[in-house]
Amino acid sequence: MSSHREGAFSWPPPADSVSSMPRTLSVASSPVRDLLALTSRPEVISFAGGLPAPELFDVPALRAAYDLALQDRSVLQYAPTEGNRALRALVSDRLTRRGLPTSDVLITTGSQQALSLVTTALLEPGDVVAVEEPTYLAALQCFQLAGVRIVPVASDEDGLDPESLRDVVERERPTLLYLVPTFANPTGRTLSESRRAAVAAMAEEHGFWVVEDDPYGELRYRGSAVAPIASHSDRTVYLGSFSKIGAPGMRLGWLRAPEDLLRTLVIVKQATDLHTSTVDQAAAAAYLSHNDLDAHVARLCIEYGTRRDAMIAALPSTVPDGTTWSDPDGGMFVWLRLPGDADSATLLREALNHDVAFVPGAPFFATTPDPATFRMSFTTNTPAEIEEGLRRLAKVLR
Amino acid sequence: MSSHREGAFSWPPPADSVSSMPRTLSVASSPVRDLLALTSRPEVISFAGGLPAPELFDVPALRAAYDLALQDRSVLQYAPTEGNRALRALVSDRLTRRGLPTSDVLITTGSQQALSLVTTALLEPGDVVAVEEPTYLAALQCFQLAGVRIVPVASDEDGLDPESLRDVVERERPTLLYLVPTFANPTGRTLSESRRAAVAAMAEEHGFWVVEDDPYGELRYRGSAVAPIASHSDRTVYLGSFSKIGAPGMRLGWLRAPEDLLRTLVIVKQATDLHTSTVDQAAAAAYLSHNDLDAHVARLCIEYGTRRDAMIAALPSTVPDGTTWSDPDGGMFVWLRLPGDADSATLLREALNHDVAFVPGAPFFATTPDPATFRMSFTTNTPAEIEEGLRRLAKVLR
Repeated sequence: MSSHREGAFSWPPPADSVSSMPRTLSVASSPVRDLLALTSRPEVISFAGGLPAPELFDVPALRAAYDLALQDRSVLQYAPTEGNRALRALVSDRLTRRGLPTSDVLITTGSQQALSLVTTALLEPGDVVAVEEPTYLAALQCFQLAGVRIVPVASDEDGLDPESLRDVVERERPTLLYLVPTFANPTGRTLSESRRAAVAAMAEEHGFWVVEDDPYGELRYRGSAVAPIASHSDRTVYLGSFSKIGAPGMRLGWLRAPEDLLRTLVIVKQATDLHTSTVDQAAAAAYLSHNDLDAHVARLCIEYGTRRDAMIAALPSTVPDGTTWSDPDGGMFVWLRLPGDADSATLLREALNHDVAFVPGAPFFATTPDPATFRMSFTTNTPAEIEEGLRRLAKVLR
Repeated sequence: MSSHREGAFSWPPPADSVSSMPRTLSVASSPVRDLLALTSRPEVISFAGGLPAPELFDVPALRAAYDLALQDRSVLQYAPTEGNRALRALVSDRLTRRGLPTSDVLITTGSQQALSLVTTALLEPGDVVAVEEPTYLAALQCFQLAGVRIVPVASDEDGLDPESLRDVVERERPTLLYLVPTFANPTGRTLSESRRAAVAAMAEEHGFWVVEDDPYGELRYRGSAVAPIASHSDRTVYLGSFSKIGAPGMRLGWLRAPEDLLRTLVIVKQATDLHTSTVDQAAAAAYLSHNDLDAHVARLCIEYGTRRDAMIAALPSTVPDGTTWSDPDGGMFVWLRLPGDADSATLLREALNHDVAFVPGAPFFATTPDPATFRMSFTTNTPAEIEEGLRRLAKVLR
């Protein structure tokens, strides 16, 4: 079991910890995991975890929402698998207002569960899943656990490359394409409008599913919103989450899918955990009914935008010449590549000696990792902490 | 999506709704499911759901526990997959005090999730799972979804029959045996001490896993506790739950397993939902720290024992001559068999016309169902409601 302190960094897990089918599930000790455990030392300034800033949680309103929810003792009882009716309506309305007409959603235990349910419902061992490379490492874990074959699609500053996708689709006939099109984890990149239309058209033409994972979409600090892929095609399963705009500890996500698939996913969820916590769901419904989430998200965007800017401004004096990095319009992450044959996993060990941390890039690759890459989160620390952290990091990298 | 009202009956699901592998997942309309949806009409006295009595929930203490938990904003953050450290220690201590020495547990999103994690970690499509027949229908769903072959083991008033188990083990080489040895769902039966030892010895001899699902063990109304199978052998995964002794809406369960398997299950859970709600976990830890759960369980046992007695006393004047039923020492269920070629699914339709409901027995069978069987829960209704409900049922059955 982990030796992490409660509430300390425990995420992301190392991708190499799940490498094969159930029978032979390997949980080999991972050097990266061992190193990341060290980021929980209080003196470490960690850019490793994809954690929202706890000081920005809307604690008084959430506390009041739980108390209000618990005035109805039925929130302590078993409940329908689909989720709390009021919450489903509130989430559907919110998606509709954001430009994605939605009549219903399935409430999930975080959007990680949504991904796991979709995997169970749509994939069999040996099927092919196409993913942007690099991509969210816990999605890779989920697919690896299902015994599917993961095929990477190349991407650039505008996100996944449709030409590369076409090659993969024609050669490999994937059942499903997984991507984080807006402020991607780990790259921070956003898929352009025209590419979204191209991806959607290809899904319709070739009959594969698009799983559009969108936990960060509302955290935009500049530019204007790009319509989701789901607004272009019904071959899309759209995943949303309360984790980045509300609080991750509540483990609340939602899933929008065509009606037939949604019904199947309800059956799968029933066998998986019966339903998501009725207390957390009712509290979220109470919170959304009595508070202005848009205003809260606007406050998050102002603060996170400042943090983003602080990190981007300090990077030139932190990293060696020849380093490249993404310049995200939103979300939580900057993705960097050191010049030459640098190995970020080795550098992490040295960084920890200087009480600063990041995540090496290798676990985000489905196939051949690029060891010179790494990911930095700018949301967890204040601008002053970011500047101090990057000063420490400069000693290691330059 | 379901048309159930919030908080109304939605459980159990029909076993026939999940009948095959993912690709061909069928969600055919189930006549039983359609009928059970009708049990949520307020005028219906329902013995169908396996629901604890909501009026016995310890609401003030749970509400205070949530409020206390939310004083620490870290309960809103991501947290380790293993679960809240304090809760794990409290649960382990409780199991140890109840006679099952336990050094650690994995906290799960209800014990249904524990079952699903074990299935993912230990089973591959085509593997054989042995089950008591009849057994918990959502366990059957979980196994069916995994594409394994389910082989029934005969049982009698003392629970699963070790001789039948030996035949199955030698003939079918199961990877896993699933059972609810104490106050089983749906039969209410308890596996005797000597049979537990025999099952454990067979697991060690033949190397299969025993999944001991124990949500009801603390709800004993007479007789004395029987040590869990897990106390006889390390080839056991022991599942516990807060749902029947606390509140099911919190979706909190726990899993005790040998250390290697526990580590594997943590990895599987990470890919499944990252972790269980930190809010619910912290509230449960606060509740257990500041309240006497034993005293609460003792109150539940007094009330549920009275309800059990009310149902057992009224049955002779409710059912036709030749009907047999179980006489449970605890738990929530009485299991009945009507004489001759009665069909309880047909009778349910008629019962609903008289505003009373039960669950037909067929979905609890892995193989050939006995349509004359049905399950009655005695925990949800007061003794007066039970008497009135059975008066209505007598009009249908006699």
